[in-house]
Amino acid sequence: MSPIRELPIFLMGVGGVGQAVLRQILEHRDLHAFEYGIRYRFIGLADSVGAVLAPETGLDDGRLQEVLALKADGRPLTEHPLGVPHSGDLCPVLEGIHVAGTVVVDCTASRRTIPALLAAHARGYAIVLANKKPLTEDLEVYHRLTRVDGTGHSPRLLDRVRWETTVGAGVPVITTLHRILASGDTVHRIQGMFSGTLGYIMTELEKERPFSQVVREAYELGYTEPDPRDDLGGMDVARKALILARDMGWDMDLWDLDVENLYPPEMDRLSVDAFLASIERLDQRWADRVGGALAQGKVLRYVAELADGQVHIGVRAVPKDSPLGQLTGSDNLVAFHTRWYRPHPLVLRGRGAGVEATAAGVLSDIVEVLGP
Amino acid sequence: MSPIRELPIFLMGVGGVGQAVLRQILEHRDLHAFEYGIRYRFIGLADSVGAVLAPETGLDDGRLQEVLALKADGRPLTEHPLGVPHSGDLCPVLEGIHVAGTVVVDCTASRRTIPALLAAHARGYAIVLANKKPLTEDLEVYHRLTRVDGTGHSPRLLDRVRWETTVGAGVPVITTLHRILASGDTVHRIQGMFSGTLGYIMTELEKERPFSQVVREAYELGYTEPDPRDDLGGMDVARKALILARDMGWDMDLWDLDVENLYPPEMDRLSVDAFLASIERLDQRWADRVGGALAQGKVLRYVAELADGQVHIGVRAVPKDSPLGQLTGSDNLVAFHTRWYRPHPLVLRGRGAGVEATAAGVLSDIVEVLGP
Repeated sequence: MSPIRELPIFLMGVGGVGQAVLRQILEHRDLHAFEYGIRYRFIGLADSVGAVLAPETGLDDGRLQEVLALKADGRPLTEHPLGVPHSGDLCPVLEGIHVAGTVVVDCTASRRTIPALLAAHARGYAIVLANKKPLTEDLEVYHRLTRVDGTGHSPRLLDRVRWETTVGAGVPVITTLHRILASGDTVHRIQGMFSGTLGYIMTELEKERPFSQVVREAYELGYTEPDPRDDLGGMDVARKALILARDMGWDMDLWDLDVENLYPPEMDRLSVDAFLASIERLDQRWADRVGGALAQGKVLRYVAELADGQVHIGVRAVPKDSPLGQLTGSDNLVAFHTRWYRPHPLVLRGRGAGVEATAAGVLSDIVEVLGP
Repeated sequence: MSPIRELPIFLMGVGGVGQAVLRQILEHRDLHAFEYGIRYRFIGLADSVGAVLAPETGLDDGRLQEVLALKADGRPLTEHPLGVPHSGDLCPVLEGIHVAGTVVVDCTASRRTIPALLAAHARGYAIVLANKKPLTEDLEVYHRLTRVDGTGHSPRLLDRVRWETTVGAGVPVITTLHRILASGDTVHRIQGMFSGTLGYIMTELEKERPFSQVVREAYELGYTEPDPRDDLGGMDVARKALILARDMGWDMDLWDLDVENLYPPEMDRLSVDAFLASIERLDQRWADRVGGALAQGKVLRYVAELADGQVHIGVRAVPKDSPLGQLTGSDNLVAFHTRWYRPHPLVLRGRGAGVEATAAGVLSDIVEVLGP
């Protein structure tokens, strides 16, 4: 029987995904100890204002339950018995803990974690990202975190950094792309539907319902971000597509992507309520588009397409019986068209969001980053 | 710039897949050197009668091209300038080479490699299997190779053994299952279509063509094994399902699986020609089955289903618009129904056979087995 390895974890971000990671680890402690010989030890947790640290002993289950109770109430970590405030820069916090073999897990949605991630990476810590920002802002940060630095190798699969859940949550989109690249196969084209919200909206439009009604319904059901324009503008999809592009070695930035916004830019100035109240004026245009597609036996899908070094993101009319057309509702889908996967692509589909599926993907990444 | 690692490879099996592995490695040498810092060094190759060994220097590209030319002519490795005969037992061959960090790659379809694989594993070598036999025969062999030995941990993702291409060729079925298991997610049900040949036959039957005509056509197009009963009997699918079952921790053997044979057992006594000449007598029964399904808006699919510790493999009538019903032709598909992937499963589909796609999967496994 191999010895159990203690696995020190520093978790940044204790929102929905971060809490689910904590809950799932508490639930699966025995599985991980028995099956993988791993015992997770939380040496630190941080939210946007505070941190709870125990670099020497790790936080026991009672302390972790206190954190979960606190965050369920929407309260900051500074109110935890061991809580200390921080300035927003996590570098000094990380500086205070030196534990070899630490895995730093970023479950925030903030660019403020970037300096701490770079420091952790430089120190040789493993990194697991659910946060898209560090990979989609400055190209140099992407290169430094993923070691694609232009002067040497880009070991990807060989490196101790994982970011599977940044695209498609637990659907292994990134793992599959990295395996394709590692084999030397040539990627001709990637097509993806990476927004559950836009997937839902497109499916409902197909039923010839008014755009305004569908968007308001999605908003009321909580399927959209608090400001539905964050979904309708396509930036979330753009960040996911940019990660795939950069992983293929395309040195691009967000502004290099061609992204279709589902509402006119002048509506950006409105409040959320005013926006929702005024979207009827888009209904006729959408009805025409949907009708035009249906007349050709096609349906509309919001698709990210990567080919020939370019990324186009927007509404496409696709055949109803194509892999993209067959996908209805909020599931995500990705189709890899490669030298060995043609004419039929390699296709993955499944729930592409949700805190539990995302947290499960983070746990897989943590186990994987330990490596053989 | 990190140093380039020499990666010693011992390849068993130089048939279709083994030759494609050689060709792809020769083609992608620069990619692997630059992107992954790996230089492959073939220290040995073996077919069923001979071996070509160069443990100290590795075989240069010229020697490898000689091997490819020889095998393209259907000639044995004993005819290579460096060729030596072996008895069929590869243990003494492996005994002759002691190179730390070797990856043993099994591209045979033979159980005769098992003793050598066990010896290699005991010696700490990494192992990549395209061969299903070592994982689907004796349960103890499976346990020893995958370290699920009942007395300790079963590190799976953490171990230096990979067998992705044994199920679905390059479609990352095993990787995805292992990620799901590593996260602690609960698998409720796996449904798979793992035979391109039977997928093709079922799709053609759906067009209300006679069974005999479809089978003879598949045989003549080379879609079936030389004896089409090897496909029609379901044993190839059964081996794939057994690997998934064992990977989930179900201690089963092939005879524990419920497998539907598409022809009556008394036809096993016939020659291939006599079998093909006499299958008309099955046409009416198949026409009735297909017609009965179509009358309910369903189609027939040859499905492996794993649930509640049991494996059922056979023809199912499934709704035309379900993920299984939507799959036509020879692509493979797998649907994981889990705690976090429900009601919609996590679905993968793509070419599940073919020497190039399989070889590419083997190369991904080789890179992955090196680990971070």
